[in-house]
Amino acid sequence: MTIAAPKLTLQAFLQLPYIEESPAWEYINGEGVQKPMGGGKHSLLQKGLIAAIDQANTRYEAFPELRCTIGNRSIVPDVVVMDKSQLPLDESGDISSAGIEFAPPWVIEILSPAQSQTKVTGNILHCLRHGTQLGWLLDPHERSVLVYQPDRLPDLLFGSDRLPALDGVALPLSVETGYGWLRRD
Amino acid sequence: MTIAAPKLTLQAFLQLPYIEESPAWEYINGEGVQKPMGGGKHSLLQKGLIAAIDQANTRYEAFPELRCTIGNRSIVPDVVVMDKSQLPLDESGDISSAGIEFAPPWVIEILSPAQSQTKVTGNILHCLRHGTQLGWLLDPHERSVLVYQPDRLPDLLFGSDRLPALDGVALPLSVETGYGWLRRD
Repeated sequence: MTIAAPKLTLQAFLQLPYIEESPAWEYINGEGVQKPMGGGKHSLLQKGLIAAIDQANTRYEAFPELRCTIGNRSIVPDVVVMDKSQLPLDESGDISSAGIEFAPPWVIEILSPAQSQTKVTGNILHCLRHGTQLGWLLDPHERSVLVYQPDRLPDLLFGSDRLPALDGVALPLSVETGYGWLRRD
Repeated sequence: MTIAAPKLTLQAFLQLPYIEESPAWEYINGEGVQKPMGGGKHSLLQKGLIAAIDQANTRYEAFPELRCTIGNRSIVPDVVVMDKSQLPLDESGDISSAGIEFAPPWVIEILSPAQSQTKVTGNILHCLRHGTQLGWLLDPHERSVLVYQPDRLPDLLFGSDRLPALDGVALPLSVETGYGWLRRD
């Protein structure tokens, strides 16, 4: 779905009452766009990735569906990984209910069947241009991961290819191990 | 469609009698895969791009559906652009009916509705890693062009963004001008 409001500003978008409904809405190139429903594969991969990254037990922590508002775009990556010290807190010291307003070090997107890969790619590239160091784009249908890092061509990884993580994160994960989380037998 | 032949070699693939049927078959990661039908938008964009590149009247020429066999992969990009001196000739001086066995300077792919964007992206990245200088990936649904160049992140271009061409090719083409070819009113 796309909000057919000409000249919607980022500020006006962020005031809309329904943008945190599920699936969340994103603000891309002056338009509000609702993410498609992820479905079962999406759900399991998102859960598996968050658990694996958190279990690596580093200064980084993984968060599902956290709003990132950076450079006149407001997106909700499937997984955002940031330094625990970067977590925004409210006055009482709890995690803030707002999202973040900086480019997180690592974003992960998992393609849904109805999703535009170009749009998701655009969001990842936008993050990288604003300071993100690592972007993964999972395509469950192809069982592949496109890996984006600054100032280089993306890498398309399959099978036993080891997935690169942030510096200092020991995450011995191959592409096929990740997609193995989809099996329940 | 995918040929379910385990361990198909590139040499065996190239001997298959039907790989030049339309749509053509490609050899990717050890599998033969038939390209999907392009459809009307695909056809018009392919035609328009070839005419525009040829009319720029440089040492380069554009070719539709020319097989490129490089680095254990055999692909048929929608448009291949190469130096006229690179054209393979047969004994009689005609253009050879075989494809080329080097990475052309420029490849263009136009997404079809049924096509895997990840697979097409993989083909473009493969060409770039073997010497191609420029890759365009058109997404007619998003009216965008992803532009790939060596050793840098791709650029996602829209609207009035000017499309980069090969050095020495004066092609004053914006994204919206290109997609304007789809209108017939």
